[in-house]
This record gives sequence, C-alpha cells and structure tokens, in this order.
Amino acid sequence: MIEIIRDGGVTSAKGFLAGATYAGIKTAGEETLDLAILASETPAAAAGTFSTNKVLSPSVVLSSQRVAGGAARAVVANSGCANCCVGEQGLRDAEETTALAAGLIGATDDEVLICSTGLIGVELPMALVRQSIGGIRLTGQGGGDFARAIMTTDSRPKQVAVSVDISGRRVTVGGAAKGVGMIHPNMATMLGFVTTDAPVESGFLKQALVDSVDASFNMIDVDGDQSTNDTVLVLANGAAGGAEVQAGSKAAAAFQEALSYVCTELAKDLVRDGEGAQRLMEVVVEGAGSLGDARAAAREIASSLLVKAMVHGRDPNWGRVMMALGKSGIEFNELEVDVFIGGIHLVHQGVAIPYLKDAVVSAMSVPELEIRVDVHAGDAAATAWGCDLTEEYVIFNSAYST
Amino acid sequence: MIEIIRDGGVTSAKGFLAGATYAGIKTAGEETLDLAILASETPAAAAGTFSTNKVLSPSVVLSSQRVAGGAARAVVANSGCANCCVGEQGLRDAEETTALAAGLIGATDDEVLICSTGLIGVELPMALVRQSIGGIRLTGQGGGDFARAIMTTDSRPKQVAVSVDISGRRVTVGGAAKGVGMIHPNMATMLGFVTTDAPVESGFLKQALVDSVDASFNMIDVDGDQSTNDTVLVLANGAAGGAEVQAGSKAAAAFQEALSYVCTELAKDLVRDGEGAQRLMEVVVEGAGSLGDARAAAREIASSLLVKAMVHGRDPNWGRVMMALGKSGIEFNELEVDVFIGGIHLVHQGVAIPYLKDAVVSAMSVPELEIRVDVHAGDAAATAWGCDLTEEYVIFNSAYST
Repeated sequence: MIEIIRDGGVTSAKGFLAGATYAGIKTAGEETLDLAILASETPAAAAGTFSTNKVLSPSVVLSSQRVAGGAARAVVANSGCANCCVGEQGLRDAEETTALAAGLIGATDDEVLICSTGLIGVELPMALVRQSIGGIRLTGQGGGDFARAIMTTDSRPKQVAVSVDISGRRVTVGGAAKGVGMIHPNMATMLGFVTTDAPVESGFLKQALVDSVDASFNMIDVDGDQSTNDTVLVLANGAAGGAEVQAGSKAAAAFQEALSYVCTELAKDLVRDGEGAQRLMEVVVEGAGSLGDARAAAREIASSLLVKAMVHGRDPNWGRVMMALGKSGIEFNELEVDVFIGGIHLVHQGVAIPYLKDAVVSAMSVPELEIRVDVHAGDAAATAWGCDLTEEYVIFNSAYST
Repeated sequence: MIEIIRDGGVTSAKGFLAGATYAGIKTAGEETLDLAILASETPAAAAGTFSTNKVLSPSVVLSSQRVAGGAARAVVANSGCANCCVGEQGLRDAEETTALAAGLIGATDDEVLICSTGLIGVELPMALVRQSIGGIRLTGQGGGDFARAIMTTDSRPKQVAVSVDISGRRVTVGGAAKGVGMIHPNMATMLGFVTTDAPVESGFLKQALVDSVDASFNMIDVDGDQSTNDTVLVLANGAAGGAEVQAGSKAAAAFQEALSYVCTELAKDLVRDGEGAQRLMEVVVEGAGSLGDARAAAREIASSLLVKAMVHGRDPNWGRVMMALGKSGIEFNELEVDVFIGGIHLVHQGVAIPYLKDAVVSAMSVPELEIRVDVHAGDAAATAWGCDLTEEYVIFNSAYST
C-alpha cells in the first residue's frame, strides 16, 4: 500500500541530507539557487540511466563511469551551465566539482556523482563554484532547496515521496526532477534524482531503475528532442534497516512499485509543466502484440506535432492519430483499430463513427486528455504522456539568445 | 547541360496531356479544380515510390500494385479527400475512379494509376466523380491545371521542367508536386508526378526514381509527420525517340541528373511553401563516414523542432545543432566537429568560436539559411531541407475541424 508523503522529496527517506546555494552560474540578477548537493549519511547502493545522445556532457560521462560500480555517497548538481561542448576542460571541471563536494561531506571523489544542466557551449565558472560550494549547508529538510536549485526553465520545483511496507518495515522512496523542454537557448534538460532508505541489492537496483524509467521518463515527450545531459540517478542507503531487497522477491515487487510510482509522478509533472503547455495528454495503446510495440505506438502518438496541435485546438482529428500509429511501424491491421478521444469512441474497426461535434470538443476541453487506441493484435498495453503544442512554445524557443 | 523550361510542368515532355475539373470534392464554396488526369499518348515505362506508413490509402495500394509491372498510361488524381481509413469501400472507389479515367482516354483499367489527397476518414464522393470526370479535357497545355488541381493547403502550384541532351537528342523531364504540411485537418500530404519523353528501360527507371527521391523528397521536413498517401510517380514514354536508356550508360547518368534536378527543385519548393514557414533552411552535412550517416544527420538537424525554432528567431543556438547531430546516432568524434551557420564559423573542433552577435543575427536574416556541419569522419556529404517553426504553424494546425 503506497502512501504519499505530503511535501516529500529527496530528503524524505532516512539518512539523506541536501542543501543548495547561489554560486552565480545562472544569469546575474536572477539571484536564486544554482548549486546543490544531495548526500547519504552512509555509503549507498546506486544506479543511473543516461542520455543516449552521442554528444554527452562530461558530467554525464563521469557519473556513468562512477555509478557503474553500483555505489555512491552523493550527487553535486548545478543549473545554468550544461558543461557540454567545451572540449577537454569539461571533464576536468566535473572532476574538480565532485572533489570539492567530496571534501565538504567527507567522502572520496569517486563516491560523488555530478549532474549539470543549462547552457551548452560555455565552461563551468569554476572560480565561482570553488568560492561558493562551501556555503552549502546539508540538512534533512534540504529536499525542497535541492529541487529548486536544479530548475532551469521549469516554472516550479517537482518533487514527490511515498512510503511503502517492505518485509514488514516502512521504507520511503522520494525524488525530484527538472526539465520542461528548452525555452532558454541551448538548455540541456531532464534530470531526475531518487533516494530511498530501503536496503536494495545494487544489481537489482539497477534493473529496477531501468524498468521504472522505461515506463516513465522514457514515455514522455515535450518536443521530440533529446538532451545531451539527461540523467536519472537512484541512491539506496538501507537506513530503514531490514534484509537486502533481492530480485524476484515479494519485497522486490513492492519496491519496484514504489519506485515506478515516484518516477511516473515526476515524469508526468515534467510534461504538465512543458514549455507553453496548456494540456497534458495521456496516450494509452492497448491490445498490442508486444510491450515494445505498445510503447513505440504510444510514444509516436504522444510525440506527433499534429496530434499535439490537435489537442491544443480541442479538435478530434483522429486521422492524425491513425497516421502516427501507422508511422510507428508496429504490427496491426487497420481494419481492427478502435480509437477513443476523451472517452468518446470515434473509430471502430478502422472506420469513423459519426459523433456530435460539440460533445467531443467539450470532452477535449480538459486539463488532462486521454487518447486511447486499441489495436486488437495482442494483450500488451503501454501509456505515454505528452503536452499540447502551443504558440507560446514557438515564441519561447525562437527568442534571441543574442 | 540542363536547361530550365520557363513555366514548364508535367505536359512539357512530348506526348503528355493533362486536364482538370471541379467535381465538388473540396469544400463547397471553394470552387476550384479538384479532379485531374495526366496521360501519355502512348504506353509508358513507369515507376513509383510510396509512403511506408502502415496505414495506407487504398489509392496508394492500388497504384503500387499496378506500377509494379513497370508500365502505365495515365494517372488520375483528386484533392479534398485522401480516400483513407474508410474500410473496404476505399479500394472499390479507387478501382472505379481509374476505370472511369481509363474509359475516357481509351486505356485499360490496369494502365491507370490513382493518387488521392485531402481529408482522412471520409469516402470519395463517387456520384460527383462519375458525373464530373467526363468534363476533363486533356491537352498538351494542361500541366498548369494539373498542378493546381492537386493542391490542398498549398498556397501556389509547384511545377518545373528541364531539357537535357541524351545521346545527341534533346529530351524533357518535367514535374509537379503538392504538400506543405497539414494545415487542414487530417490532410494527407505529399504527391509528386514526373514525366519524360526520354525512352527509359523500366528497371533503370525504377532505380533512378528511388535514387532521386532519396536525395530530394526523402530529405525534406516540414513537421516530422509522414502521410498515409505520399506518392511519387514517373512516366517515361520515349516520344523523344532514340535508343532506350539503360543502367550504367552515359545516357543514364545524364537522365539521372535531370530527374534529380526536377525532384530536388520540387522538394525544396514544398518546404519553401511549408505551413507557416518564413525561412528555408538548407542543412549540409559533410565529412561523414557514409552516405547513410550524412543523410541521417542532415535529416535529424533539419527536423529538430528546436533547430526550426532557432532558425525562425535568427538565434545562433549552435548547441541545438550539436544536440540534433548527437541524437542522429551517426559515427563522429565531438572534438572534431565544425559548425557554420549562414557561412559563419561558430564551432571549431567541438568548441565555440567567439562571434559578433549582430553579425550572426544579420547573416541569419535571409530567406534561405545554410547550416553546415563537417564531422571530419570521412568523405560523404548530404543535404536536407527544412523550414522554420512559426507561431502560424501552430495556429493553422490547432484550428477546429469542427
């Protein structure tokens, strides 16, 4: 039984501390938090998933190398600078920043991971980082500050925490995330951080993270672009006590459920806050021949510019849904497809059902719209989330950086 | 030596006739051409390339079956209705329409191909087609009417013709195309028609068309979506006389050059007229390890929403170009990449070159902007074309269909 912890975040789980400061990495005048540390009081099992873009921030490269060992103590994160496309200096700066954070919390350099988000093509202002990082005070109430410090074009911090029973003990899983598109020039976008006091075996932790991310952060779309800095990290310090959660156990299933809940809530919150977005769309594809097919089709529909524009205009252009479904390349027979928009059955066996226009426009005038497609080719289902495409998105993203 | 024929089109080549009429398929009140026939006076070698969407208009299915034999006499085309997602009625209507056209020009049904473009999900109004098709007068000056009759949301007809020497004879290659995105609800978009009086062996004609389309229509992007009706057809009737053009010959190279010229000019013209577009961008990727890599990277950059928005705002956010390049997954080393925007060298070996902001904004304030990327991984190069993303695109595409 998952219970939501009000105002919870990355410091809700036992033994996690966080804090943040303003180092001056973000635009001057925009005085706000931009450098933060999240740490476990004790060494923790750790896992990460990272952008598959060929152009990667050295912050991503360093974190993925260090987390491969399955353990970590802390993460240092900065907003305002992606530390990307800056040549070999980028890795040196990432290493130095983690060393500074390690000194502050009494960890070894290798135990500290790093995430950077912001402008591509400018170096981290290391003089400012050196000067400011000592001002970070780590506390058990620092989760909110951490969530604010990682924001770039986000309009609000995004955090969530839940508690769940695992083998008779109450454990907590909490998280924070940022990334709503790329309003500001060259922003590199999505970061997610999850902490838990459950004791989790590191091999299972990695698999559990991959499975949760595949169903959450990998099923959302704002603008189809994929950042050079995307990272999701999880730390499990075992502070709640009890036996280590191993793959295949009942405890593992309960932990996976809580982890997926946290990842899914954060992912949906990113889309809800998407650049210029006014409406969330939830695309459910049912009856697919495989999970891969269901996910591919749901993602294709949620990513289609024409579907996004149609959701914005509350226009039941179901032909665009069929077009996106067909473009996904999954196995199905057009003459068996059913399409529902806002709960209204618009297409049966591939052919239009006459509908009352006003009723459909009215059903589409909601903050969260469901588009459901049943392809009747099997038993697999998947859900993807996208936001509508608005004039504001274009205005934001075509603004001069100059 | 390719020479452009002023005001040329699909009836510029010898032995081709075309004509069009208003059948009433397009919205009432919008009295304009919507049903057309293009025919060769004699049987012609024929080839086609078609949408790879899993949801296909029966018009596409029928034409691809018939053209597989390598010969055809004519094409009947309608705008206003995509004849798509209408169940089994779609194929019956496509067959009847071609039979009506065949009767009119004295061909057999199998010699007539069909292309439909317009709303998805509504049936072809066959009563109107039967009643009106006889009103089409085929003439050697009908190319312009044909180009107008296939338009949907296009703001102007798109046609081009060239002449070229092949084995000492002057032959003509001409074409028409339509498709600028999907302003109108559920429009199915891109159609292209090419005619030539060169005598071309049908196996080579097919390969030549595939090669030309790969470098032209397959390298353009308006909004990333792919229609259920996309088709490019070529008819070669040999009316110019001379020996049949065979693969591997000098004549074949000359023909290929003319065909590629016609396809490329039509493709660029589609993008230039893209929904809401104010600027054409030409993306050149050089130094790639293979042609496939060069094309994939050029297409990815030209298709990126963030790059499109940046071109709209004349904002030299080269980080977005690097992001799209990385997302393409091609082989390259980030520290060897050079990026030029509007001819200005902005990135050398993966790192920013300081620039005068006003100069770059000024260089980007052009109707056709070049983005050039050299990845220094080999000798292959490719060009893709895209348009900018504007507020108008969103406004057009979110309009009520209701």
